Amino acid sequence: MSRIAVIPGDGIGQEVIAEAQKVLAVALPGYESTEYDLGARLYNRTGEVLPESVLSELDEHDAILLGAIGDPSVPPGVLERGLLLKLRFEFDQYVNLRPSRLYPGAPTPLADVKPGDIDFVVVREGTEGLYTGAGGNLHTGSAAEIATEESLNTRYGTERVIRDAFERAKRRRGHLTLVHKTNVLVHAGGLWKRTFDEVAAEYPDITTEYQHVDAAAMFLVNRPHTFDVIVTDNLFGDILTDIAAAVTGGIGLAATGSINPDHTHPSTFEPVHGSAPDIAGQGIADPVAAISSTALLLEHLSRPDAAAAVNAAVERELAGRESGTKIRTGEVGDRVAADVAGQLS
Amino acid sequence: MSRIAVIPGDGIGQEVIAEAQKVLAVALPGYESTEYDLGARLYNRTGEVLPESVLSELDEHDAILLGAIGDPSVPPGVLERGLLLKLRFEFDQYVNLRPSRLYPGAPTPLADVKPGDIDFVVVREGTEGLYTGAGGNLHTGSAAEIATEESLNTRYGTERVIRDAFERAKRRRGHLTLVHKTNVLVHAGGLWKRTFDEVAAEYPDITTEYQHVDAAAMFLVNRPHTFDVIVTDNLFGDILTDIAAAVTGGIGLAATGSINPDHTHPSTFEPVHGSAPDIAGQGIADPVAAISSTALLLEHLSRPDAAAAVNAAVERELAGRESGTKIRTGEVGDRVAADVAGQLS
Ligand SMILES: CC(C)[C@H](C(=O)O)[C@@H](O)C(=O)O
Ligand SMILES: CC(C)[C@H](C(=O)O)[C@@H](O)C(=O)O
Repeated sequence: MSRIAVIPGDGIGQEVIAEAQKVLAVALPGYESTEYDLGARLYNRTGEVLPESVLSELDEHDAILLGAIGDPSVPPGVLERGLLLKLRFEFDQYVNLRPSRLYPGAPTPLADVKPGDIDFVVVREGTEGLYTGAGGNLHTGSAAEIATEESLNTRYGTERVIRDAFERAKRRRGHLTLVHKTNVLVHAGGLWKRTFDEVAAEYPDITTEYQHVDAAAMFLVNRPHTFDVIVTDNLFGDILTDIAAAVTGGIGLAATGSINPDHTHPSTFEPVHGSAPDIAGQGIADPVAAISSTALLLEHLSRPDAAAAVNAAVERELAGRESGTKIRTGEVGDRVAADVAGQLS
Repeated sequence: MSRIAVIPGDGIGQEVIAEAQKVLAVALPGYESTEYDLGARLYNRTGEVLPESVLSELDEHDAILLGAIGDPSVPPGVLERGLLLKLRFEFDQYVNLRPSRLYPGAPTPLADVKPGDIDFVVVREGTEGLYTGAGGNLHTGSAAEIATEESLNTRYGTERVIRDAFERAKRRRGHLTLVHKTNVLVHAGGLWKRTFDEVAAEYPDITTEYQHVDAAAMFLVNRPHTFDVIVTDNLFGDILTDIAAAVTGGIGLAATGSINPDHTHPSTFEPVHGSAPDIAGQGIADPVAAISSTALLLEHLSRPDAAAAVNAAVERELAGRESGTKIRTGEVGDRVAADVAGQLS
């Protein structure tokens, strides 16, 4: 039986995760879940974000389903670093996966794109680069202050995520784009490019391409249909995936997995959107991204049929929406769960 | 008399700079120019990119007008670092300025935007951050390889570019957005944010805003009209300005200035596009971006009327183009120069 740790979190996180669980109940029948009350409430009550004992308990699960964290009462960065990034590093979630598909009915800001035109995934490195916290400040607050940030990259870390990306490209349309900034970041760029080229030699059927991050950012806007799989470092991936979300209708619809492909620790699945305190508690949050994140979870737990059913149901849900109609959180979950149940019965 | 160093460079750089000079001849009558043959040819002949003696000569000028550099015969990065970045650092060009306007007739990939909707400038720091080259590799080529890149930031460097951005916001619509990634890059982000907030206190009439770089990248795509002036670090600016170019019709139309606002060394003005070897020598390159870069040059040399005339002429040139009509490089320059001449006579 699959054991899922559920972290609803703050604001609309609570509401959308309830719907994701409705869908999971039919897509992964009999799964066991444990709920963890992490986020702003715990922090404000105890000053702790992720107690060691909770981290150990989470580690006993097959996957983590997370809603959203963040509240104006908590200083910016505390929960993000203390929970989200902590999980990525502690659980060695080195593949940060963000699929981008333009669904029928999704409000893309682009002209001249049709549903189906945009369909790619970004494989973002999740445990290295500028996200390690290395760096510091000297003479803080004075006119002489200096601040450094250090990007740390290993052959070990780049190779494993690049291999993962090649495997994904093999299962998709067979095209992989490496994104970095080798013309300026020569040290890390050199490592990434050499590792990429070496691994590429083992995948003669995958066509490969290299793009500088600035060019890739532009191409995601003016020719997003040319991408299949993108592999890139932690910070570049952070930026590119938000552009990807923008062109496919906004972060409101995007889902992400922070994945440990070796299953040595649980992986985290979540909607990309935040806790949206302004609309929390009203039952009007769109649970589609949270529901989509269960598809990534099912994929990771080797349930491709269930994952496909969820994706198909989400696609129908979005296609069936009339523009301007108000979302009712609970109704969306009911509709998608019923659709999934129908497909899997 | 203004002394302009002209570096046509490679490929279409030669062709578009000739047109920019036609326009400059009428917008800055009697300017003196010295041409420098830098780029792929010099490098392939001598192995040198920017000899010290040439650097000293360039330093004697009021501004540098650059076409484009780069050729398949030169290893990637050599000319970019050896010439473009070298000039930015040696000449202390700490304001990298990239105006983004959607002109009538420009081919934006966005739906639902009208000319005039998008009009902002990015003030990108040009002499610090991840562009200093700090970092290295260890155990290169082995399974144990590590690579680092260090972002170096000073109070001195952040404050001066932030002040410049506030001044520009004052001359525009009075809104300034700081972009960084303070929730992850806490060291550099802290310095940028504190410096920004301190300087902001001196500009009570400027409304300010902070955005994480991933959010800003998204907003540039789905609500670009909300920006007036953006100030950000070197690498974030590199990425954001390419998104900005994408939404305003592509890098083919964008111009940039690498500016030393204190005039202690010359500033460089150039089109954002590359040398496009595939279309070089055919007289079909669009010189509009090179011409727009002369407007930035004129602005920097305190010729606001001439700069406005060039911008107005470029706007008319683009508006007058029928979609699908082939560009003739020389004709565009002639038309714009004549228009500028008419305005200034
Ligand atoms: C919240 C933040 C720390 C996080 C990141 O930068 O990785 C987020 O932007 C993301 O993409 O998951
Ligand atoms: C060519 C390259 C070094 C340069 C940069 O990264 O700054 C370019 O992308 C730019 O934006 O001027």
